[in-house]
Amino acid sequence: MVTIFDSTLRDGAQAEGVSFSVEDKIKIVRAIDELGIGYVEAGNPGSNPKDLEFFERIKSVELKNTKVAAFGSTRRRGISPSEDGNVQALLGAGVDTVAIFGKSWDFHVTDIINATLQENLEMIYDTVSYLKDKGKEVVFDAEHFFDGYKNNPEYAMKTLDSAVQAGADCLCLCDTNGGTFPDEIFEITKKVADRFDVVVGIHAHNDCGMAVANTVMAVKAGATHVQGTMTGFGERCGNTNLSTVIPDLQLKLDYKCIPDENMGKLTHVAREVSEIANLKLDDRAPFVGKTAFAHKGGMHIDGVSKNSKSFEHIDPELVGNERKFLTSEVAGRTTILSMIQKIAPNIEKNSPETVKIIDRLKELEYEGYQFEGAEGGFELVIRKELGKYKPFFELETFKIVGDYPSDVDESATAMIKISVDGKKEITAAEGEGPVNALDKALRKALEVFYPALSDVHLTDYKVRVLDSGSATASKVRVLIESSDGVDSWTTVGVSKDIIEASWGALVDSIEYKLIKDIEKKFKEFL
Amino acid sequence: MVTIFDSTLRDGAQAEGVSFSVEDKIKIVRAIDELGIGYVEAGNPGSNPKDLEFFERIKSVELKNTKVAAFGSTRRRGISPSEDGNVQALLGAGVDTVAIFGKSWDFHVTDIINATLQENLEMIYDTVSYLKDKGKEVVFDAEHFFDGYKNNPEYAMKTLDSAVQAGADCLCLCDTNGGTFPDEIFEITKKVADRFDVVVGIHAHNDCGMAVANTVMAVKAGATHVQGTMTGFGERCGNTNLSTVIPDLQLKLDYKCIPDENMGKLTHVAREVSEIANLKLDDRAPFVGKTAFAHKGGMHIDGVSKNSKSFEHIDPELVGNERKFLTSEVAGRTTILSMIQKIAPNIEKNSPETVKIIDRLKELEYEGYQFEGAEGGFELVIRKELGKYKPFFELETFKIVGDYPSDVDESATAMIKISVDGKKEITAAEGEGPVNALDKALRKALEVFYPALSDVHLTDYKVRVLDSGSATASKVRVLIESSDGVDSWTTVGVSKDIIEASWGALVDSIEYKLIKDIEKKFKEFL
Repeated sequence: MVTIFDSTLRDGAQAEGVSFSVEDKIKIVRAIDELGIGYVEAGNPGSNPKDLEFFERIKSVELKNTKVAAFGSTRRRGISPSEDGNVQALLGAGVDTVAIFGKSWDFHVTDIINATLQENLEMIYDTVSYLKDKGKEVVFDAEHFFDGYKNNPEYAMKTLDSAVQAGADCLCLCDTNGGTFPDEIFEITKKVADRFDVVVGIHAHNDCGMAVANTVMAVKAGATHVQGTMTGFGERCGNTNLSTVIPDLQLKLDYKCIPDENMGKLTHVAREVSEIANLKLDDRAPFVGKTAFAHKGGMHIDGVSKNSKSFEHIDPELVGNERKFLTSEVAGRTTILSMIQKIAPNIEKNSPETVKIIDRLKELEYEGYQFEGAEGGFELVIRKELGKYKPFFELETFKIVGDYPSDVDESATAMIKISVDGKKEITAAEGEGPVNALDKALRKALEVFYPALSDVHLTDYKVRVLDSGSATASKVRVLIESSDGVDSWTTVGVSKDIIEASWGALVDSIEYKLIKDIEKKFKEFL
Repeated sequence: MVTIFDSTLRDGAQAEGVSFSVEDKIKIVRAIDELGIGYVEAGNPGSNPKDLEFFERIKSVELKNTKVAAFGSTRRRGISPSEDGNVQALLGAGVDTVAIFGKSWDFHVTDIINATLQENLEMIYDTVSYLKDKGKEVVFDAEHFFDGYKNNPEYAMKTLDSAVQAGADCLCLCDTNGGTFPDEIFEITKKVADRFDVVVGIHAHNDCGMAVANTVMAVKAGATHVQGTMTGFGERCGNTNLSTVIPDLQLKLDYKCIPDENMGKLTHVAREVSEIANLKLDDRAPFVGKTAFAHKGGMHIDGVSKNSKSFEHIDPELVGNERKFLTSEVAGRTTILSMIQKIAPNIEKNSPETVKIIDRLKELEYEGYQFEGAEGGFELVIRKELGKYKPFFELETFKIVGDYPSDVDESATAMIKISVDGKKEITAAEGEGPVNALDKALRKALEVFYPALSDVHLTDYKVRVLDSGSATASKVRVLIESSDGVDSWTTVGVSKDIIEASWGALVDSIEYKLIKDIEKKFKEFL
């Protein structure tokens, strides 16, 4: 049994270009909980006021599997933990588990924080015992443990002694600079695991491309607590990629990390977290990447067709991914079936409708659609294929005009002409940019026919550039999240033109709302 | 001494989305030669007519370090090597070194190629000895060697025996499915290295995130021939990343792979190969990625400023990369100062200019700018504050028009009017969406005055929605990455209107290029 300690929200947020809103963080915690991961390290309340808001908000979120932890450091020199604002902020987070890092490399103690070696041991002891007195579960992150051990093994071990004597529940050995190799990791972790009775953990970085291998070797040496981030993003070259190391440990080496029945959600969760972080998931990412089970070589395709184990080390369905011979890629059939059955409960795995929908999805995904995190749009695709759909309006035309430089906020104008059951409506609106103008004009025209749309507002708008190599002529994928105050749903549009892509997602969002209203109103008749 | 055998042009070409022209291949061979790599496996002349053209063309290219190898397979069942078209094509390539793969996993022999175990041994023996008779250096790629060894060690070893008896120069052990772990690789490779006197090699795949670790462990077990691709791309999850494993082996473990004096070219070559393959190099790639030595956490920045080894496992200059302090809310004054000093070396930490720039930066970050990963844009901010800037053109006006639904690709039109030193230029362009149209129109107008701009192309375009709660009226941040084939730089724009945000980034990108050109041209006078 290995406990996974997810640091996507903390070390992951150290990655270039990553900056989570409180809302993003809550969505990620829910995704991690859904996967069944033991802990999520959610931030450093002492260094970031946004994190405090998060800890307040997360209290009212019900989690099935995941405990939330706060992150901070040992007390500063010369003051007690009760006087240290950062330590106090950890308590203020109001969570049961805290991870604190302290120095294990003598060079860092003397040359970076300018403390004596004895002072540092006291800083560790005092902070851990203070937090234990407050009833916390304490993870001690031994920063630079491996560099420290290689430089001065005796002192590195002493820092762990201090933490254990003060009551630490877990000693997490950090390869902070990512410069250590698997055989060294094995040997040093084994020494620690043999010496202490508490849980031993591993926190690896990928600077030598070794984060996952180092983590696996630490587990083989006795570590039972594994830190990492969901898709490996983090400071510099990133952290241990949990979406790689979890299946490595669980599927290949029989160490249990998450409930077996959740392993099939791995690909979905990895992609969802990437979307929220607005980082493209590496196509080649082991297990969860788009091409992780894609076969291009003719001999490979031939081999896999005869027997999949000929060129696949595991069955892609185990992690919710799919084999690919061409350029199409779809979530597992089971996932799709469960979505179909929401709309048409009597359709089965091998029904012709299922095959048709999967074919359509492959087409759409080839075009750049991705329905991970866009179930609203996904439901509309299914309805259209099942014939359980009719359009709520016809677009005749719309026109966008923008004049720049603009000295007013509303730099763009949209004119639109639609018809509903033969009745035409033409109108216009100004907006902050073309998409906003179009959104306003479309709603204005439709509210004439569907007053309930006045409750709908867009709550999120995301743009992801696909095949970014062709720059401003790249395809873009637009995700729109909408809410009517009760429910919230997400839809998706794809085009080389951001306005067309946004249009697709806007129309789907509105139609989804109108369908839901009909379902509610006429539940008895459906 | 480890011999590097680069397979970027062969296994790398198996990656989704990769397709090299003959010209591309020659450029890549030159880059690999420049780095001092021993061999390049350049293609399979039997399966690809483009490869034959390549082998013809490469004969007239003078290479200093690199030998070119051709790749193929053992003869087919029931015919002799002299009757086998693929084997003959290998000879037709006209190179001294050939790599041939053969089956080492009994299951593959019986179930995939439907041969008897004895027949397969003969296929290996015959093909190797035929090629040796023709005077070739022969690398035997033992396909699925590790899976084969785990299933039937005796037979797997027999396949190697056949190759060695026939005169093979190198036995390259392949983890074809990428499912083997470092400790197994070490153990099995050691058995092979202990048993045979010929060179032993390793060819690893990354399906478990272990390719680099497996390669390093094989070398520790006695392998002295390492196969991989320059930035790790290849079938499925890719191959051993040479830009990671070369510095791992040479800088960290003292195995010599390339001439020491060439190590500083590593980052350049990795980026160049990515550019030619039209694959974005992972920002987080160890050693050569954009953020491989980027520090964001305040404590890390502080530590590195005191002593770089505190948070860096090697000096980035060793591999031709650069340290970067990411300019975010958490980055300190030190980061900013080092950027300022690049432009004005005599400005100090407490100079009034520094204070002014930091204030301006705070304002911009408050507005939603983020300069981490956008050093081009950041440099322009500094220049503007220091007065080391003048605009290269004046915008009079631009107008965007889009008509939808559109049945042509170019749905949007941009008209633009600019002036340079009082001379006006008015022009227009169509594009796939408003931003693409604007980009084209602006370049078209400016190239009249600045012909060097025709070298510039956009290599990446990113959109991040800020405060996404206000949906389509949210602020957006646009990042544009540009390249002139030599350098690459990133600029940023922010607005509620995506067109204005893109405009800001486009203008900065162009001005940055023009400033760099002036700096290069008039270096002596600055």
